[in-house]
Amino acid sequence: MNKTIILNNRPVGKPKPEDFKIVSEKLEKHLPEGEILLKTKYVSVDPYLRGRMTDADSYIPSFEINKPIESAIVGEVVESNNQSFSKGDFVTGLLDWKEQQKSDGEGLMKVNAEQAPLSAYLGVLGMTGLTAYLGLMNIGKPKAGETLVVSGAAGAVGSIAGQIGKILGLRVVGIAGSDEKNEMLKRDFGFDETINYKTTGNMTKAIADACPNGVDVYFDNVGGEVADAVMFNINDFARIVNCGAISIYNATEIPKSISVQPFLIQKRALMQGFIVMDHANQFSDAIGQLSQWLKEKKLTYTETIIEGFENIPQAFIDLFDGKNKGKMVVKV
Amino acid sequence: MNKTIILNNRPVGKPKPEDFKIVSEKLEKHLPEGEILLKTKYVSVDPYLRGRMTDADSYIPSFEINKPIESAIVGEVVESNNQSFSKGDFVTGLLDWKEQQKSDGEGLMKVNAEQAPLSAYLGVLGMTGLTAYLGLMNIGKPKAGETLVVSGAAGAVGSIAGQIGKILGLRVVGIAGSDEKNEMLKRDFGFDETINYKTTGNMTKAIADACPNGVDVYFDNVGGEVADAVMFNINDFARIVNCGAISIYNATEIPKSISVQPFLIQKRALMQGFIVMDHANQFSDAIGQLSQWLKEKKLTYTETIIEGFENIPQAFIDLFDGKNKGKMVVKV
Repeated sequence: MNKTIILNNRPVGKPKPEDFKIVSEKLEKHLPEGEILLKTKYVSVDPYLRGRMTDADSYIPSFEINKPIESAIVGEVVESNNQSFSKGDFVTGLLDWKEQQKSDGEGLMKVNAEQAPLSAYLGVLGMTGLTAYLGLMNIGKPKAGETLVVSGAAGAVGSIAGQIGKILGLRVVGIAGSDEKNEMLKRDFGFDETINYKTTGNMTKAIADACPNGVDVYFDNVGGEVADAVMFNINDFARIVNCGAISIYNATEIPKSISVQPFLIQKRALMQGFIVMDHANQFSDAIGQLSQWLKEKKLTYTETIIEGFENIPQAFIDLFDGKNKGKMVVKV
Repeated sequence: MNKTIILNNRPVGKPKPEDFKIVSEKLEKHLPEGEILLKTKYVSVDPYLRGRMTDADSYIPSFEINKPIESAIVGEVVESNNQSFSKGDFVTGLLDWKEQQKSDGEGLMKVNAEQAPLSAYLGVLGMTGLTAYLGLMNIGKPKAGETLVVSGAAGAVGSIAGQIGKILGLRVVGIAGSDEKNEMLKRDFGFDETINYKTTGNMTKAIADACPNGVDVYFDNVGGEVADAVMFNINDFARIVNCGAISIYNATEIPKSISVQPFLIQKRALMQGFIVMDHANQFSDAIGQLSQWLKEKKLTYTETIIEGFENIPQAFIDLFDGKNKGKMVVKV
């Protein structure tokens, strides 16, 4: 029998274990012409999946109740009836939370297990790295000597965005939720300054202190009060990359913030939402650049790897308590 | 004696007559080499001046207590000791609220009284028209067939922005504060649809009804609750021009709105603050285009002209009650 994780209820507020259900299904032995059989090796859990669990009109269809959840997965080809794939190949793509599944190969990309650990293709060389790089470059337009603030800085995307800022010659300030994470940001990722938003009373002042020349680029993974505090510190012509808003994804009422309009006008600043899928034409160049930086050891990454298929839901839930450092991945 | 209007107090909330004071000063007869003597003909009152009355760090210095207010003015050269200007020339520029004043001519532009009424150089052919045109083109990037929503639509900038949208082939929906204004928007300016925000209960639904294909470009002059309601109706890749936020300029506490981040992310939308002074290199081309449209009668404009130097403060105050239709100008 083949284990599958389905959406049991649409979460209200923070997702709970009961919102998911592990079921067993029979997997037909027969592999049709053109298909491959994949064994799941690594599963990516990401904050944006929370949006797909809601029954709302969005850029990507909602998950259906009693149907499998889907996320980025690295799988191994264990049987192939498709000329493009051979047994033993590793592939990545949006796949179901199943131990094994069939695919016609569409949307799957082969990955090289020699070049980088398989889990890296869900992180620094996957959507995570692409989001950090393309969001920062396309919207943030960073210039050497400027100041970059990254929220959710110890998360998967944030820790890469901050490092790219350093590579490009910016002052980089990270905001995260524990001293231990902040220690890591400075020690392992070269952030210039960090702020613990959980223990800092006056965030607006803390950001001002950490950014004596103001904020030119804000890579926002969290929204909410942290984003409000940054707004008081932006410079003329600042660019704000709206990449995520994890602090308010679980809100059960429409969340309120300071009105951003007067700030944007006064500073002629820009805020723009970013979703990496819109930029597929840049993926290949971006992966090239990220691989190069990895090879040169200019870029490093951290992962939180949870073991066991049945722990996927809890790993996802733990994202909202910030239990991950860097990319949260489940090894199956 | 020469009458001058000075800032008497920094307004708290909505400006009051007592925040201004008319004083008389002696004007030295002697006109130094290189200077001109100007007689004020028309004075522009604009919502953005409210910001300059506050003692806050901004893109443009605050007015000082007991010093004259400054705004866009059309003046007549009554005496010249500067080769670039002759007696009888009309000029426009940022000048003091004075009946007469001297200037070295820096920052002044000559205007042609034959080509357009003098007051138009404070409106459609002045900062107002430039703001509408350059804000819409540079940030809104309108495309034929799209839907443009304009708030403060019966105001000076809004009524021009909406007409430009029509010239460019967009569906244009205007939001204003009276049925009479909305009638004018449709009849005189060719708006497709209008919404009276003062009498409409559910603005989000009203905008949805008026914009069956959603909102692609939002030219925002007001911020606040109207801007919130538009946010629920934006399309993928929408562009929001943050041109003004008159609904919250008088706020005495930091105003709150819905958190825009989740909307911007989901729709990959852009919000950007616009201040026309940043785009001086485009003024000449823009005035050329606006004059052309005026000549072709594709573009029209309305003004509210108040008479009398001493009525300048009240004309300014009346902006915040929406008493103007189109550009509010004081004829001296």
